[in-house]
Amino acid sequence: MEKRKATCYVIRRSSKCLFDHLFHRTFDEPPLQWNSGSMRNFVGAFKQLSSQVEQASRNPFTSSYLSSNVADFNHASTTKCSQRSFSLWRRFYGSAATLIQKNLAFSDINSDDISYFKNILGDENVVHDADRLQVANTDWLHQYKGSSKLMLTPRSTEEVSQILKYCSTRCLAVVPQGGNTGLVGGSVPVFNEVIINMGLMNKIISFDQVSGVLVCEAGCILENLESFLDNEGFIMPLDLAAKGSCQIGGNISTNAGGVRLVCYGSLHGNVLGLEAVLANGTVLDMLGTLRKDNTGYDLKHLIIGSEGSLGIITKVSILTPPKLSAINLAFLACNDYLSCQKLLLEAKRKLGEVLSAFELLDSQSMDLVLNHLEGVRNPLPPSVHNFYVLIETTGSDESHDKEKLEAFLFCSMGSGLISDGVIAQDINQASSFWRIREGISEALMKAGVIYSYDLSLPVEKMYDLVEEMRMRLGHSAKVIGFGHMGDGNLHLVMSAPKYDDAILAQIEPFVYEWTSKHRGSISAEHGLGLMKANEIHYSKSPEVVQLMVSIKKLLDANGILNPYKVLPHSLLRLSG
Amino acid sequence: MEKRKATCYVIRRSSKCLFDHLFHRTFDEPPLQWNSGSMRNFVGAFKQLSSQVEQASRNPFTSSYLSSNVADFNHASTTKCSQRSFSLWRRFYGSAATLIQKNLAFSDINSDDISYFKNILGDENVVHDADRLQVANTDWLHQYKGSSKLMLTPRSTEEVSQILKYCSTRCLAVVPQGGNTGLVGGSVPVFNEVIINMGLMNKIISFDQVSGVLVCEAGCILENLESFLDNEGFIMPLDLAAKGSCQIGGNISTNAGGVRLVCYGSLHGNVLGLEAVLANGTVLDMLGTLRKDNTGYDLKHLIIGSEGSLGIITKVSILTPPKLSAINLAFLACNDYLSCQKLLLEAKRKLGEVLSAFELLDSQSMDLVLNHLEGVRNPLPPSVHNFYVLIETTGSDESHDKEKLEAFLFCSMGSGLISDGVIAQDINQASSFWRIREGISEALMKAGVIYSYDLSLPVEKMYDLVEEMRMRLGHSAKVIGFGHMGDGNLHLVMSAPKYDDAILAQIEPFVYEWTSKHRGSISAEHGLGLMKANEIHYSKSPEVVQLMVSIKKLLDANGILNPYKVLPHSLLRLSG
Repeated sequence: MEKRKATCYVIRRSSKCLFDHLFHRTFDEPPLQWNSGSMRNFVGAFKQLSSQVEQASRNPFTSSYLSSNVADFNHASTTKCSQRSFSLWRRFYGSAATLIQKNLAFSDINSDDISYFKNILGDENVVHDADRLQVANTDWLHQYKGSSKLMLTPRSTEEVSQILKYCSTRCLAVVPQGGNTGLVGGSVPVFNEVIINMGLMNKIISFDQVSGVLVCEAGCILENLESFLDNEGFIMPLDLAAKGSCQIGGNISTNAGGVRLVCYGSLHGNVLGLEAVLANGTVLDMLGTLRKDNTGYDLKHLIIGSEGSLGIITKVSILTPPKLSAINLAFLACNDYLSCQKLLLEAKRKLGEVLSAFELLDSQSMDLVLNHLEGVRNPLPPSVHNFYVLIETTGSDESHDKEKLEAFLFCSMGSGLISDGVIAQDINQASSFWRIREGISEALMKAGVIYSYDLSLPVEKMYDLVEEMRMRLGHSAKVIGFGHMGDGNLHLVMSAPKYDDAILAQIEPFVYEWTSKHRGSISAEHGLGLMKANEIHYSKSPEVVQLMVSIKKLLDANGILNPYKVLPHSLLRLSG
Repeated sequence: MEKRKATCYVIRRSSKCLFDHLFHRTFDEPPLQWNSGSMRNFVGAFKQLSSQVEQASRNPFTSSYLSSNVADFNHASTTKCSQRSFSLWRRFYGSAATLIQKNLAFSDINSDDISYFKNILGDENVVHDADRLQVANTDWLHQYKGSSKLMLTPRSTEEVSQILKYCSTRCLAVVPQGGNTGLVGGSVPVFNEVIINMGLMNKIISFDQVSGVLVCEAGCILENLESFLDNEGFIMPLDLAAKGSCQIGGNISTNAGGVRLVCYGSLHGNVLGLEAVLANGTVLDMLGTLRKDNTGYDLKHLIIGSEGSLGIITKVSILTPPKLSAINLAFLACNDYLSCQKLLLEAKRKLGEVLSAFELLDSQSMDLVLNHLEGVRNPLPPSVHNFYVLIETTGSDESHDKEKLEAFLFCSMGSGLISDGVIAQDINQASSFWRIREGISEALMKAGVIYSYDLSLPVEKMYDLVEEMRMRLGHSAKVIGFGHMGDGNLHLVMSAPKYDDAILAQIEPFVYEWTSKHRGSISAEHGLGLMKANEIHYSKSPEVVQLMVSIKKLLDANGILNPYKVLPHSLLRLSG
């Protein structure tokens, strides 16, 4: 309760005296902005905490509360047949069950293969250990499980090249694996593909202070890169809850988004170069460190977001922004979604160059977090408001940013866009605000089973889908809408006590059809993986899909790289 | 002289009393920042002026002073043979003479073709007029001239598709053409290719205030889009001197850079969607308007920067930033290049989120402009300094940005990085500063013939090349170095009274070898076009070039799209 009391409400209002409060504080209360020194520690500390909590909540091997859900998963799974012929793949929930037929053109591992790999990698990097393989075969959400009998852990590009060249000749299917934190079944085997884990390629190769360009191996863990850059006075242009485990190569392979995208843009803008190995072992050296290079087709963009199906990323060159010292965080309430929209427009205009996050939560998200997470408090009591918006600013001057934020809030309150709000006064408050937003996934897992969708939609249409889904499902499931509103990225999640085919039938294909109708994307930041490979036509035209298939065949003639993912397997098999 | 006297020197110093000057001004002189209202007009006005001047200086059809140079070009040209068999292509200067063999697989236009095109496009959009064809056959610098007898001006994607489908069947080579402002011979025919001019596809399709996403046809002129957005309170994320003529489709096809890249990033980050037509007439609808879309390979990136050789862009979706009201411009002098480097690092750190341009000029560039352009004055007399840096800030709050800039300048002067400097007080001063930077090309054209190179290099190595070149050439040519230092983009230009093979032999291949050795790019922002197609190996590995060739063949089996450009023709012909 002490901590609760200590919370300093800055722009709270329950009546029209709001403006008085704001100004009153300005003169009579201590400044509410933390200083740059404490902020540096704070960012590291609360992000680390959040990351740990998030990982604990998502990693099935460390999380006890997930056990019951895992049981549910198994309960809900469909029949799994022989690995050598046909198989009904397990799809627990979140999408209609997917039927995958094993590609019989792929070879199975034999003792000669093992000998070959041991010869080039050494015994210790050819992994048979059952426990390690179980971990590597299973995705974080325990929705997908492969049956690979072999994991390879190369230490160099040359080794990756040798592995792929061999696999290509032998027609051995492979799954590239980074931190295995993906949410769409893209980073685990479907059958018995060889797992190529990149974790040992974790060296930082160079960092240039003038250009801010970092060059490193693909297996570097995102958080380690962030720590390294922190000492150099820079930051990574992306930040994810999974950063304690996910690897930069995997981030780039999946074109990961996260909370900094609204400020620093996508990886297509920030990745300056890549080294990647094609299915036949060819090493593509595109590891430029230049901001500008117009010498022909920029092929690294084919690899970015291809989810390991066109090549394995081995090295990375990435533009990192200087670390700016001032960070502010406001937790605001809005009465309706239209106000949130207008607030976003105002924030872009008034906060301009310092706006670094604009996150949305609806009241159902807040309810969920308050009911299922220990120690989380409503920052704007007594009631739960219809919508919450988390706005972060990042800039080079504390007083400037504070002035901008306060002027923006003053104006937004005056025009009625905000019904209540608070600015974090210190690291603990900021941490507690982010905990609400980043704790939603954890709370959802505690609440029951989930049907989860990661969608991009035009901002003005984004919440219409949540409301339509709510109408559609009635009392059968809770419908929660939250996400990176600044990027038009909605996380739509249906929560129910147990898995029910009838609920799924109400959700799919409706959710994809609705998204497609509004020219949205069925995967904003998670990728297609195995989960949505067959749904690609909802977001891509037949001509574009056909060209993707042609490019896949051009770069990976035997289809050995991450098979069954990204593209409908039927197209790869049938179209010659 | 009145105007000259009116210039307000803000941070001038010739002694150690610099800091006194700075602080003195702060309190005793009027503020030197223009207000947001006047700034809006100013930006439009001086950019328009710069653009007009730049165009006048570069467009051979409106510029009288270029005539003598054109004569020089012709004098220096190599033999031109029959268009129907072999031809030595004219290369006047700027690279070693290029020998191009016409691809005899291409058909020549016949009367049936003309009838077909008139049938689908109407008579008025099938252009035979000699004057219009002469313009369309010649590039801006008069370095390249084709002999096309036919220009088509489609009005819709469907028409572009019909044209290409037909050309593909008939094996008629085509050259997509936007504003024809390219500098590497990419936008004009080499022989008698059909020109497809996109100028009539110039409609704005939609603009969304919330997301800032503009959707338009490819033939929209950049400046028209800028004007449209100005009324909406937004700006284009790119700005070029040629913006009065260049088209957005051409900008994206060439992945154009410009002065805003340091702030808003490249077109790979800002282009959200494209519609493009492939060589066989297939329309690729990738015209998404979403900031995030991870549904498979992002094929629009293949088209961006492919210089019309993989497809013709017909529609564009682009993320536009809100127009921020405060702009400051400082013109600074440095004693040595190391100081410029350190200044860049300091600017990135101290100006952070408001740094919007960081341009470099050496003393030779300044000399040239002062000697050859009317009405241009040295902003920092009496002497010419070794280096000049133009720093622009763009932000949402005038007083904040001014404070940041002054603090940065104060610190940089204190540490000796700046030897002199001035902040523009009003629109006229800002315009005169930009005129110096943007007038270099014009001054170069007046001074004689030029050997021009657009290079990306690591910032710390950038000026070494200029100095080495100066040593190498001695008194035979002046060597000028300037460019977008914030992006590591050097414009290296050698200026001589007349063309001389011996000078060229001193420059090439040395300049490419040096660039390659330092992992630079032989084309930062201009593309490869015809000029550098055969030099691609200096910036790309054989494996990457081979994959480009394979992709070219996959998307354009007969090679009809912009032949002889981007990739070495020999590879396209020989590699199956």
